[in-house]
Amino acid sequence: MVKRITFEKFDDDLAEAAKHYRAPSGLPAFLGIAVDEFLPGRLVASIEVRPELMNHFGVMHGGVISALVDHCLGGVVYPVVPAGHWVATTEYKINLVAPVRQGKVTCCATIVSLSTSLGVVTVEVINEDRVVAVAQGTVIVKAPRNPG
Amino acid sequence: MVKRITFEKFDDDLAEAAKHYRAPSGLPAFLGIAVDEFLPGRLVASIEVRPELMNHFGVMHGGVISALVDHCLGGVVYPVVPAGHWVATTEYKINLVAPVRQGKVTCCATIVSLSTSLGVVTVEVINEDRVVAVAQGTVIVKAPRNPG
Amino acid sequence: MVKRITFEKFDDDLAEAAKHYRAPSGLPAFLGIAVDEFLPGRLVASIEVRPELMNHFGVMHGGVISALVDHCLGGVVYPVVPAGHWVATTEYKINLVAPVRQGKVTCCATIVSLSTSLGVVTVEVINEDRVVAVAQGTVIVKAPRNPG
Amino acid sequence: MVKRITFEKFDDDLAEAAKHYRAPSGLPAFLGIAVDEFLPGRLVASIEVRPELMNHFGVMHGGVISALVDHCLGGVVYPVVPAGHWVATTEYKINLVAPVRQGKVTCCATIVSLSTSLGVVTVEVINEDRVVAVAQGTVIVKAPRNPG
Repeated sequence: MVKRITFEKFDDDLAEAAKHYRAPSGLPAFLGIAVDEFLPGRLVASIEVRPELMNHFGVMHGGVISALVDHCLGGVVYPVVPAGHWVATTEYKINLVAPVRQGKVTCCATIVSLSTSLGVVTVEVINEDRVVAVAQGTVIVKAPRNPG
Repeated sequence: MVKRITFEKFDDDLAEAAKHYRAPSGLPAFLGIAVDEFLPGRLVASIEVRPELMNHFGVMHGGVISALVDHCLGGVVYPVVPAGHWVATTEYKINLVAPVRQGKVTCCATIVSLSTSLGVVTVEVINEDRVVAVAQGTVIVKAPRNPG
Repeated sequence: MVKRITFEKFDDDLAEAAKHYRAPSGLPAFLGIAVDEFLPGRLVASIEVRPELMNHFGVMHGGVISALVDHCLGGVVYPVVPAGHWVATTEYKINLVAPVRQGKVTCCATIVSLSTSLGVVTVEVINEDRVVAVAQGTVIVKAPRNPG
Repeated sequence: MVKRITFEKFDDDLAEAAKHYRAPSGLPAFLGIAVDEFLPGRLVASIEVRPELMNHFGVMHGGVISALVDHCLGGVVYPVVPAGHWVATTEYKINLVAPVRQGKVTCCATIVSLSTSLGVVTVEVINEDRVVAVAQGTVIVKAPRNPG
């Protein structure tokens, strides 16, 4: 049996707030990212397909899915690191395996490993019961400079 | 001396049109992608930093840079494949190596290899004379289904 | 419920032969790759840790794990494509998340998507009940040039 | 003009020793990795093609190129970090763009960015004057635990 990662800490308040949060502006607002589920080591977030997110061919722009993945990679790590720590995606790789034409795009991010400075996260993106993208990436975790 | 790839065809009209094009809507319009240079095997495009593209920390959202990279990966290949062929990014990997806070973000995409069905492209993203991201990815090239 | 990929064809003879095969020479022989399980869309293969595969620090050389992953990425696709088709890894990405010091390294490769020309595969590498690496990549599938 | 990274330190002795070193055993010995050039931020290393490194199709096993890339990713960083620091490849991505059949495979690794804890490296692999692979990856840099 493979031992999956467990977490000593999970900030329930932060996760609960994230579920009710809608960004008022910026890229997350343009994309319309909504958090569906937030558990220790797992974040599920989605975007409703709408005309503005499509390319000339009536298919969701790959950049939309990329941006959603990038957003979730860092997001899933926040509630499991000490309060005040800073988390940023430093790299990731994505395979876009099927076109998205309608419905909802749901991104499921899962933490695979986490040290004091680096986390590795795998991602599956689902649309209409099909996997449309898979990704994996690394986030940097940094302690605040003036902890006192 | 390493032989670099050369291209039998380059659609000057398409490249010239791209340089003057500003998307009226959609993700490229939200990001404000502008083509600076379009040569055989090379596309340079940029985004002006503005508040809507930043995250909570006053740093450009990684998803913006990802989406720009995704956009250029496919774009650079269009003028060198036969007219009517369809090009799509199938996968890429990006390393975000420095934060973007102001100025312009410029994405330089270069074709490394191209067969009848697949192209490989490397990307360097520059901000204020510094490399802020590097990426590499694969595009699929497909002939139209009804060529007649 | 997410629909997982299914396969119309699975070459049992090829899979069975692979389970009993030990490469007499070459990189797979040097590494000592052994197939543990071969099912439609899934290949599990492993390497026994031995001194020759370690680096100066008593940790398995990352190149060993990379080579095992590369080997399995292509391997998992062979039994599900038409006989005589040629399969090759065209790209992949790997995160090495924990050091390997002893025991066995087991690579589990799973096909995520498969078209007539491209397959996408995700990989988990396990050592002593822990995930030590995750990877994902793309394979090219090609029909034989002279099918007749 | 893009400012390229410069290095405060370069361990000439280590680089010079690396140029004359041939691993007596292990994966680098099996592969036959030889360092051709070692400069601040740049490592060029190569492997002579020989039958043991080929697959069934007379093409170099992708795992050989992967292992060479993995080796150089960490190697290029050693002479520019403080003595005693430990360097390890934590992730990389590779595109294999052309088959290798004969001659020499040469891997050119270049540091793109370097902080106190992370470095990003891009790689070009050359065979017979052609690019046969491109890669990019991240290395972790760690100070010794007991510096005194």
